[in-house]
Amino acid sequence: MRSRKFAPSNRLEIIGIDGLPEIREGNDLTRLFLEAVEAKKLKLEDGDAIVFTSKVIAKSEDRVVDLSGVRVSGEAERIAKETEKDPRIVQLVLDEAKAVVRLMKNHVIVETKHGFVCANAGVDESNVEEGRAVLLPKDPQKSARLLKREIEERSGKAISVLISDSFGRAFRDGVMGICIGVSGIPALVDRRGEEDRFGKIAQITKEAIADEICAAVNLVMGEFREGVPIAIVRGLKLERCESDIQELLFSKEEDLFR
Amino acid sequence: MRSRKFAPSNRLEIIGIDGLPEIREGNDLTRLFLEAVEAKKLKLEDGDAIVFTSKVIAKSEDRVVDLSGVRVSGEAERIAKETEKDPRIVQLVLDEAKAVVRLMKNHVIVETKHGFVCANAGVDESNVEEGRAVLLPKDPQKSARLLKREIEERSGKAISVLISDSFGRAFRDGVMGICIGVSGIPALVDRRGEEDRFGKIAQITKEAIADEICAAVNLVMGEFREGVPIAIVRGLKLERCESDIQELLFSKEEDLFR
Repeated sequence: MRSRKFAPSNRLEIIGIDGLPEIREGNDLTRLFLEAVEAKKLKLEDGDAIVFTSKVIAKSEDRVVDLSGVRVSGEAERIAKETEKDPRIVQLVLDEAKAVVRLMKNHVIVETKHGFVCANAGVDESNVEEGRAVLLPKDPQKSARLLKREIEERSGKAISVLISDSFGRAFRDGVMGICIGVSGIPALVDRRGEEDRFGKIAQITKEAIADEICAAVNLVMGEFREGVPIAIVRGLKLERCESDIQELLFSKEEDLFR
Repeated sequence: MRSRKFAPSNRLEIIGIDGLPEIREGNDLTRLFLEAVEAKKLKLEDGDAIVFTSKVIAKSEDRVVDLSGVRVSGEAERIAKETEKDPRIVQLVLDEAKAVVRLMKNHVIVETKHGFVCANAGVDESNVEEGRAVLLPKDPQKSARLLKREIEERSGKAISVLISDSFGRAFRDGVMGICIGVSGIPALVDRRGEEDRFGKIAQITKEAIADEICAAVNLVMGEFREGVPIAIVRGLKLERCESDIQELLFSKEEDLFR
């Protein structure tokens, strides 16, 4: 048995924050979040990572669309037929998209204007009134930065903010929590140059830490019911820095699967 | 503000288990794990999900290969040149593969015999002695089942076992924890038929819960140093059942990106 020099045992806590009202345009999410934390007799701590679902961000930013007002183009009609989807939803997806990546029954896989490759551009009819749909936040990276700054100012704690959504993947069934905006910690941890336990130098490993955090909180949020729109991850030992979700995205040229 | 009926606030704890010796073929992982838990003055609880990295499983099953003994085929030589990789590693990758999916510099993306689409068939030279490489476990689904049964028998607790690895993804940079074997909980939670908070019925959402759990534990394991080869996730509220990692895998015909 060889001697080992590795980090001591590590504990992480994930705390779901529920009890928020239905979010409407213009709501002060920072205040609602801090009130919900207090109502649970919790206190924020330095280093907490706070994850908001994209849906509460989108609702607070009025990214909710009334389907009856959507004007459907010929292209949307055609794709709607091919995919057996609601033409109004397809129109919203196309409006949010930079490029169509793949089409299949019930799915339009696109690259969104933000650069995310996902089904239906994240346009979602669940957890909103009948006849309406929620888009992804317009600029979730900016939303994350603003929320981080506001929460830090009002709480006095050094925290990070992530915005999560649930995306399907290539190769594997099922959706998974994924990050669409991050502020205060790295999006990607680059481990190149670190030594392994045999003293060899890592060559290529980068870890998508922001996506792992958003996947982790899905375990307390549940994907569908949206009863827990915010979660705190406590115990992460990450450097504090500004990063950008763009660091996680392959361009089309780098991407083997587009 | 409408009335809401959703699950109460939820807390999850992730506990990294370190302090295990370097694992060798034939080691009794169940005993080493239970001793490490006891050394930390922890007690297993009913409902705990226990995640093992694939590497400790592979090492205990003698899936470590001495590169000097690898005989390189013409095909491996050719792919090694194209990808600028060690021909002996390429040979191991081909031996583990059912099909080559994509080739690029330093990467051979394959479908493994298990059905996992990943870089280099999971063959890894980190955290093993110089001149050796670790393969994925031969049948990680079976390994998960065996470990679950043994841990339950010896601890008297109703637990689940998952085996994790770190895979790259399409569309996004960085690796992420992912599940390659699961026993005792669902691999995939099917939410079709559940109501959202507006009483509408979910149509299509399936959540890759086993992958989310393995992504979450990567936050305490670290991807590279392998100081924390096992982690306990405590507080999950999942039905107890037998499942199979195959439920998470798209066949080539279902997969839009192969």
